[in-house]
Amino acid sequence: MIYVSRKEHFNAAHKLYNPQWSKEKNVEVFGPCANENWHGHNFELITTVAGMPDPDTGFVVDLKKLSILIRAEVIDKLDHKNLNLDVDFMKDKMASTEILAIEIWKILEPKISRISKFGKLYSIKLYETPRNFVEYFGEASNP
Amino acid sequence: MIYVSRKEHFNAAHKLYNPQWSKEKNVEVFGPCANENWHGHNFELITTVAGMPDPDTGFVVDLKKLSILIRAEVIDKLDHKNLNLDVDFMKDKMASTEILAIEIWKILEPKISRISKFGKLYSIKLYETPRNFVEYFGEASNP
Amino acid sequence: MIYVSRKEHFNAAHKLYNPQWSKEKNVEVFGPCANENWHGHNFELITTVAGMPDPDTGFVVDLKKLSILIRAEVIDKLDHKNLNLDVDFMKDKMASTEILAIEIWKILEPKISRISKFGKLYSIKLYETPRNFVEYFGEASNP
Amino acid sequence: MIYVSRKEHFNAAHKLYNPQWSKEKNVEVFGPCANENWHGHNFELITTVAGMPDPDTGFVVDLKKLSILIRAEVIDKLDHKNLNLDVDFMKDKMASTEILAIEIWKILEPKISRISKFGKLYSIKLYETPRNFVEYFGEASNP
Amino acid sequence: MIYVSRKEHFNAAHKLYNPQWSKEKNVEVFGPCANENWHGHNFELITTVAGMPDPDTGFVVDLKKLSILIRAEVIDKLDHKNLNLDVDFMKDKMASTEILAIEIWKILEPKISRISKFGKLYSIKLYETPRNFVEYFGEASNP
Amino acid sequence: MIYVSRKEHFNAAHKLYNPQWSKEKNVEVFGPCANENWHGHNFELITTVAGMPDPDTGFVVDLKKLSILIRAEVIDKLDHKNLNLDVDFMKDKMASTEILAIEIWKILEPKISRISKFGKLYSIKLYETPRNFVEYFGEASNP
Repeated sequence: MIYVSRKEHFNAAHKLYNPQWSKEKNVEVFGPCANENWHGHNFELITTVAGMPDPDTGFVVDLKKLSILIRAEVIDKLDHKNLNLDVDFMKDKMASTEILAIEIWKILEPKISRISKFGKLYSIKLYETPRNFVEYFGEASNP
Repeated sequence: MIYVSRKEHFNAAHKLYNPQWSKEKNVEVFGPCANENWHGHNFELITTVAGMPDPDTGFVVDLKKLSILIRAEVIDKLDHKNLNLDVDFMKDKMASTEILAIEIWKILEPKISRISKFGKLYSIKLYETPRNFVEYFGEASNP
Repeated sequence: MIYVSRKEHFNAAHKLYNPQWSKEKNVEVFGPCANENWHGHNFELITTVAGMPDPDTGFVVDLKKLSILIRAEVIDKLDHKNLNLDVDFMKDKMASTEILAIEIWKILEPKISRISKFGKLYSIKLYETPRNFVEYFGEASNP
Repeated sequence: MIYVSRKEHFNAAHKLYNPQWSKEKNVEVFGPCANENWHGHNFELITTVAGMPDPDTGFVVDLKKLSILIRAEVIDKLDHKNLNLDVDFMKDKMASTEILAIEIWKILEPKISRISKFGKLYSIKLYETPRNFVEYFGEASNP
Repeated sequence: MIYVSRKEHFNAAHKLYNPQWSKEKNVEVFGPCANENWHGHNFELITTVAGMPDPDTGFVVDLKKLSILIRAEVIDKLDHKNLNLDVDFMKDKMASTEILAIEIWKILEPKISRISKFGKLYSIKLYETPRNFVEYFGEASNP
Repeated sequence: MIYVSRKEHFNAAHKLYNPQWSKEKNVEVFGPCANENWHGHNFELITTVAGMPDPDTGFVVDLKKLSILIRAEVIDKLDHKNLNLDVDFMKDKMASTEILAIEIWKILEPKISRISKFGKLYSIKLYETPRNFVEYFGEASNP
């Protein structure tokens, strides 16, 4: 097994806001992240696929195809968007980096087999800033 | 003369939108940057002060004081904010990186003398993303 | 389970020196790292907490609270300090990056429950330079 | 157990080309990476060794010795070279990042015991670009 | 005047080789950079345009248009190519970073007016590696 | 004219301390930077040489020779050292980044002609941290 990664990026606005709470409670819990007029980030997304290299190509997965898949299925839906308002798969969910990484996993995991005979999605790593980031390995697995 | 720089960061939402144009024209000119529900960035701000070092300290400017000044006068007004809606000094201006850098210069330039006997503001460099950035040296001067 | 990380930094002096050895033996083993007048680094510290996201916030742990905890318990004791002379929890220990990472784990591990219902400390990653770094996952666990 | 890493770099040319295929098939599969006149990269190589710290030094492995070993056994054979033409251990292999990482593992794994009583090779992480990278943990182990 | 920059990248092979010298003299002068089977780099190219912001857009130059121009005129001719063999504008020239930056300037300088009413090309900065880079400001001008 | 740069690094300890002041005054002015037991940094040093490329090599300066010169004349005197105690050219000077950059300029400026027919030292840029840095262009010149 070898682990192959591709980094992509997108720029988006969001706020952290629980609609079941009062405005005051949201500000108390989320601080400036609850700003009602939004704020935003340059997100960096690292997608890792694990598998055996194909003997014909030396590839677990063609990173060009992986990049095209990630852009079509994820980046085009997130880039220059508002995570709370514009993104169907984030509807009625908290727009935290944790939840966003889990939702990106759910989108990409079943589609990796389209582009790789040998590889499976291993992890989604999502940087909200260079200082704050999360990693998700799917429901069943640990790193 | 020696040039001393401090890097700070802030996260903000914005859109590029000229209110004198139709929505269609804005989308035509600004593309996804005109998304009406906003998008955002992790901005990096580099402030450079030029001068002779103070013989008592070896400093052109105490970078701790420069950091406190930049945070109080600039970062606190921009971080976790919407550049179009929440920032008084950006009111009725295009929320481009160019205009934002010029406005930050106008705020900081007259205040450097408060914290430095020997230094003057030399440039404001502002990264919207690691790939897109601007630098401003004031009205009268070139680099 | 999702893994959430926060990066902090501190600047410190240290030397690598085994007091049970002669000066010559120390120089032989540690080379310039044994310089008796010290040297130093900009350390980068990445703390990772693992857990389920809280359904109310979407957070495994509030990264603002995690940052405050790390600064109070670790950074304030290390930043602008001498690791061999000024740091109580490094007393009589080798000031290597390995040992420092293990001691930071011991400090933070029991305190994560104060700020997170769902998360546990997963790893401490410590960069001495961009080229030399260590990671520790606790006594009982592997990555 | 603690995991200790060293980053090195090398610059090399290569192409992706399966000699059992026609030129057209190679271009179809590998696109511009099959350019017959080669292209190249600044590779970054991160070698991670896992073990218990030596009580006398606080080290799992002396990173100076690890650096010298990696340079002698790997970097000197790859830096400013053509991966397809100049590198004996890549002869008749696909010059993909995956295969190169596996071959570097095979070279370094048996040699770590020369420089470390307590450590074993844990992983080889190889960046072809800042956006494309692979990691290998050996045949028997997962991360 | 404000200075606006866009960063792009390309991967290429090259060697440093003066055809008027013997092979021995080339190796003596250029060392491993003269390897006859080539080596390569991930180049980073920063293009800076200077001018006044357009009052309608807040832009000196639309960075999307600048990116498209750089890709069409420069990146597409260099990426996944051999600088000595595949690039018409480098024919019979030394494939040094200095010469490449000057040639990129010559290509882009007359074309900036196509995409910007107010801006002129100010500099071409070219990173061969993160440690080795050059900057060119045109024949007539200094920084 | 073209501007050619080389980045090197060194790790050093220092403190900011004016011996003509009381200990209290030093702490008041320099804060934790005056810690009597020192602190330290990973410094990054960028040396820029300006000139015309040599037609035989395409080089303003051979960056391998520039690197060897910087290491012999500067890095070897600073790396794994204490800037206040171990460095002859910093004796009786404030160990600020500003003063250190000026002293490095004085050392390197007269020696560039040894390795380059066409180039002159243009600037010394010195990063104390990724957030705090200075640049010096010599007594007579501005950028």
